[in-house]
Amino acid sequence: MATARTREPQQDRSRATRLRLLETAVECLAELGCSATSVGLVAERADVSRGAAQHHFPTREALFMAAVDHMADVRADELKQQAAALPADEDRTYAVLDLLCGFYVGPLFRAALQVWVTASADEALRSRVIPMEAKFGRDVYAAAVELLGLDTSRPEVRETLMGTLDLIRGLGLADVLTDDSRRREVILRRWASTINQTLDPGG
Amino acid sequence: MATARTREPQQDRSRATRLRLLETAVECLAELGCSATSVGLVAERADVSRGAAQHHFPTREALFMAAVDHMADVRADELKQQAAALPADEDRTYAVLDLLCGFYVGPLFRAALQVWVTASADEALRSRVIPMEAKFGRDVYAAAVELLGLDTSRPEVRETLMGTLDLIRGLGLADVLTDDSRRREVILRRWASTINQTLDPGG
Repeated sequence: MATARTREPQQDRSRATRLRLLETAVECLAELGCSATSVGLVAERADVSRGAAQHHFPTREALFMAAVDHMADVRADELKQQAAALPADEDRTYAVLDLLCGFYVGPLFRAALQVWVTASADEALRSRVIPMEAKFGRDVYAAAVELLGLDTSRPEVRETLMGTLDLIRGLGLADVLTDDSRRREVILRRWASTINQTLDPGG
Repeated sequence: MATARTREPQQDRSRATRLRLLETAVECLAELGCSATSVGLVAERADVSRGAAQHHFPTREALFMAAVDHMADVRADELKQQAAALPADEDRTYAVLDLLCGFYVGPLFRAALQVWVTASADEALRSRVIPMEAKFGRDVYAAAVELLGLDTSRPEVRETLMGTLDLIRGLGLADVLTDDSRRREVILRRWASTINQTLDPGG
């Protein structure tokens, strides 16, 4: 009994340490980029001993991968919460696009983009990022289908939705160096109107 | 006379050296990323002395900026040549989108993306990349208006075209880690059909 009781708080502490390292890694990646982010620096900023950090993440690659995975989880949780508050009227399409944009804008996306672009010039990282990126793309696609209530048996619906997600990713890239939020809203409203005309959301 | 004659070949040689450094810098950026690309490495790979390279590009930032500028020039020249061969029929919209995609796919874009993403975590580089990126965006937009023959007095035309360029940038990002050309063609054909329905290209 005593052993079990001691082990449980230890596990909680370990989980809390891991989470703090991941959150700090995301901050470092977004702020400093991949080449400046090391397990040592993240440990120092997170106020975790280097040994404990290396127990959780033996390599930079392991830390980067876990950080990207963590970001996707955080966004998926946020999406679930925000989805409940979406309007049901004709503004729903815009509201859904705006929600999906949240995956590709802000510090989480900037951190992921650093890993993504670094992976394009680093074969070991690349082979690990590709399946993770593919899974993330499928998850966002599935969320979009559900939130927009689309009938994906029609190829034009599938193709337009894929293009819409490419558009959203492009909007994310346009926000990396400067605040593009005003232009983004105009583009998304226009695109929502096009989708309402050419597809049949919720139908 | 003799001095003028000697000077001219010297200027030619200097221009040729600068061009070789820029082309090598683009290769290094696309292949190795920003952090691994230095003036010294580029000089070595281009078979240019370190002194000559530093005469042209005193800093890495100067080299990166000139390389991105050079890429935009190369693509603008290619665009002009390819534009002459575009079809005039209903396939023109797809052909134009495919041509514009050429700006955001391949080693030139991967090199530019490395600089772009590095700039997001480097204030000195960022302040120099922002105006360059804005000018590039305006040039691509102007080329798209001309090639598609659009009437941009209507806001929906301007907004749809901007969204189209965001879509194309998103497609470029989707091609960074894996060859996305087959999916890209499907998306672009669907998008061309949507543009033909909602806008009035050439009208």
